[in-house]
Amino acid sequence: MFDFNYFTPTKVIFGKNTENRVAELVKEFGGKKLLIHYGGGSVVRSGLLKRVTDSLDAAGIGYVLLGGAVPNPHLGLVYEGIELCRKENVDFLLAVGGGSAIDSAKAIGYGVANEGDVWDFYDYKRKAKACLPLGVILTIAATGSEMSDSSVITKEEGLVKRGYSSDYCRPKFAIMNPELTMTLPDYQTACGCTDIMMHTMERYFTNGGNMEITDAIAEGLLRTVKKNALILRDDPKNYEARAEVMWAGSLSHNGLTGCGNDGGDWMTHKLEHELGGLYDVAHGAGLAAVWGSWARYVYKNCLPRFKKFALNVMEVEDSGSDEEIAIRGIEALEDFYRSIGMPTNLRELGVEPTEEELKDMAKKCAIGVGGEMGSAKVLNEEAMLAIYRASV
Amino acid sequence: MFDFNYFTPTKVIFGKNTENRVAELVKEFGGKKLLIHYGGGSVVRSGLLKRVTDSLDAAGIGYVLLGGAVPNPHLGLVYEGIELCRKENVDFLLAVGGGSAIDSAKAIGYGVANEGDVWDFYDYKRKAKACLPLGVILTIAATGSEMSDSSVITKEEGLVKRGYSSDYCRPKFAIMNPELTMTLPDYQTACGCTDIMMHTMERYFTNGGNMEITDAIAEGLLRTVKKNALILRDDPKNYEARAEVMWAGSLSHNGLTGCGNDGGDWMTHKLEHELGGLYDVAHGAGLAAVWGSWARYVYKNCLPRFKKFALNVMEVEDSGSDEEIAIRGIEALEDFYRSIGMPTNLRELGVEPTEEELKDMAKKCAIGVGGEMGSAKVLNEEAMLAIYRASV
Repeated sequence: MFDFNYFTPTKVIFGKNTENRVAELVKEFGGKKLLIHYGGGSVVRSGLLKRVTDSLDAAGIGYVLLGGAVPNPHLGLVYEGIELCRKENVDFLLAVGGGSAIDSAKAIGYGVANEGDVWDFYDYKRKAKACLPLGVILTIAATGSEMSDSSVITKEEGLVKRGYSSDYCRPKFAIMNPELTMTLPDYQTACGCTDIMMHTMERYFTNGGNMEITDAIAEGLLRTVKKNALILRDDPKNYEARAEVMWAGSLSHNGLTGCGNDGGDWMTHKLEHELGGLYDVAHGAGLAAVWGSWARYVYKNCLPRFKKFALNVMEVEDSGSDEEIAIRGIEALEDFYRSIGMPTNLRELGVEPTEEELKDMAKKCAIGVGGEMGSAKVLNEEAMLAIYRASV
Repeated sequence: MFDFNYFTPTKVIFGKNTENRVAELVKEFGGKKLLIHYGGGSVVRSGLLKRVTDSLDAAGIGYVLLGGAVPNPHLGLVYEGIELCRKENVDFLLAVGGGSAIDSAKAIGYGVANEGDVWDFYDYKRKAKACLPLGVILTIAATGSEMSDSSVITKEEGLVKRGYSSDYCRPKFAIMNPELTMTLPDYQTACGCTDIMMHTMERYFTNGGNMEITDAIAEGLLRTVKKNALILRDDPKNYEARAEVMWAGSLSHNGLTGCGNDGGDWMTHKLEHELGGLYDVAHGAGLAAVWGSWARYVYKNCLPRFKKFALNVMEVEDSGSDEEIAIRGIEALEDFYRSIGMPTNLRELGVEPTEEELKDMAKKCAIGVGGEMGSAKVLNEEAMLAIYRASV
């Protein structure tokens, strides 16, 4: 067991119609002039944005709007947001949307609160010393960014996707109304469930420090998402299932499911980041597409955990050798992914990289992690390339 | 499922030697002049208090000392602390100890930050509007007060024990070094494990709103404490077991194990509060002594939860009627309590109330909860008396 810090200061307001409390929460955390940051047109079309601005108008809170955050959010829009905030003396950010809007808002927050180029943080050149305070109205259960310390941004030039983490960007509040996620396309719901499971699995498949209580929480969370993802496949308007998945999304990435361990593996995310940067695929689908190849490459080096996962999460038959049980667990998760419409290789994901592109991704991935990384198994560029090849 | 708020802003610093970071953390949260509040002589004898004051001296942080917090901490000392803080211009509280020191410090914090008599809050007469910021160095895993919103104080006159909850008193930081709990007497360790389990069980045995993910977390936490309490009985210096129990203690009472439900039952705590006020018994032991009688009185009204508890926590045989399984679970928990040296009735607790005293406790308990209370089953004064009688 390793020492750990646990810091989740975000005030969560969870339930029906909770978006109506936005003005009260902004005031509680001292916001006077907001940048409301969102993605595509759905928050406009659904009327959510109008409800939010009406609330703020009624409370006398000023704001400016910035839409256009896309999946794998772009650095260009971040720069635009920073400039807008400075020009309009914005002192509080409100992200309305999913991980794209939240991560983009976090980057804007870093940019406003620190001198110099915000990309420096994402490029591991220096560390942020502050971030503008941020609130969230969540509309997609997926990235967990509403409680997490991380944000991921893509630089258009060279399509470089990088994450940066610090406690400064943890949202002050997160308004979470499961009803707001009911109109999501099935594919996005499934991508979200995959992302949520992966955030816990990245912390689960490690070779050091695991605590029993953390494992029990992680396994319970994974079983809950697995079960409710299937319910939502057949009944997308099921409030209880939406709520289970939404809360699991926050808990999966706020640090709770990693307490005591060595920090986690995170190589599936790193492998997907290169895919996401290059092909602009949905993050959850990208994770599902490479996970099986990663798992088969590493499982022998992390056998006790893969066995435990197979039995306690995928609930496979407890017979045969540990390796057989582990493989049964991997196959069961792939079967589950397929059953909710997720890909289990790159072809099913809809991308067919050339050998040169595979090599390029492996090279960028290795650079991105500083040469090698992983806990279930430490992977270098050669190993990354082998996994990419196996996932074609 | 009910709407819920979740707010756990406490920065947890968990692991070996973490008490050495106290000055850094006090500075991070703006403390300049501290009241260090602690209990008996153990934090002095162990050298912990000296290490803490040496750290503060080296960092140039001023402080005054106030020891003497006892189990079921007294209002008199709270008044003393408030006066001392005002006289010395204290701006930050540091509790070094377990629930007694922390709860007492929280009450001092309310008293300093609000006008009027601090007992008014505990007596349900008015609500606090602020609390002095508070940090914790935890030396006993039990009450979860290091992350919770609650504090419990006993007024000496009439031995009235009351709790008050608000987010204002949630500690800014909690330093948690499992090694500091290794020298606890076995009885206190067992009392702590019982208290931890009860905090989760009070939230678990309800008739409304339960979420699957909350249940999975609660059941995993309970299994973890159950297993590690037995390890500590035989091997009190086991670091891993100390750590599992310590972290479970915080998670059991920070709100996590109640998300989505109706707020919980809490009648075992209320019944114990009267015992604790009158006889000054250890809180955990008092809970164990009344729980079985409470459970047998209410289980038929909350059968699905008692069955689930029996199977998923106590892991009893899944055969027979739901009632039989439920009773098997209750008996299994009582067996477990006995196996770690906890009482399962008042006689084993070492108190033998007269019928008049039982009636007096039931009356005070009913008044304390405003007439009737409970979720597994709503209990009035008559029901409370019946449970007290059954627990003799």
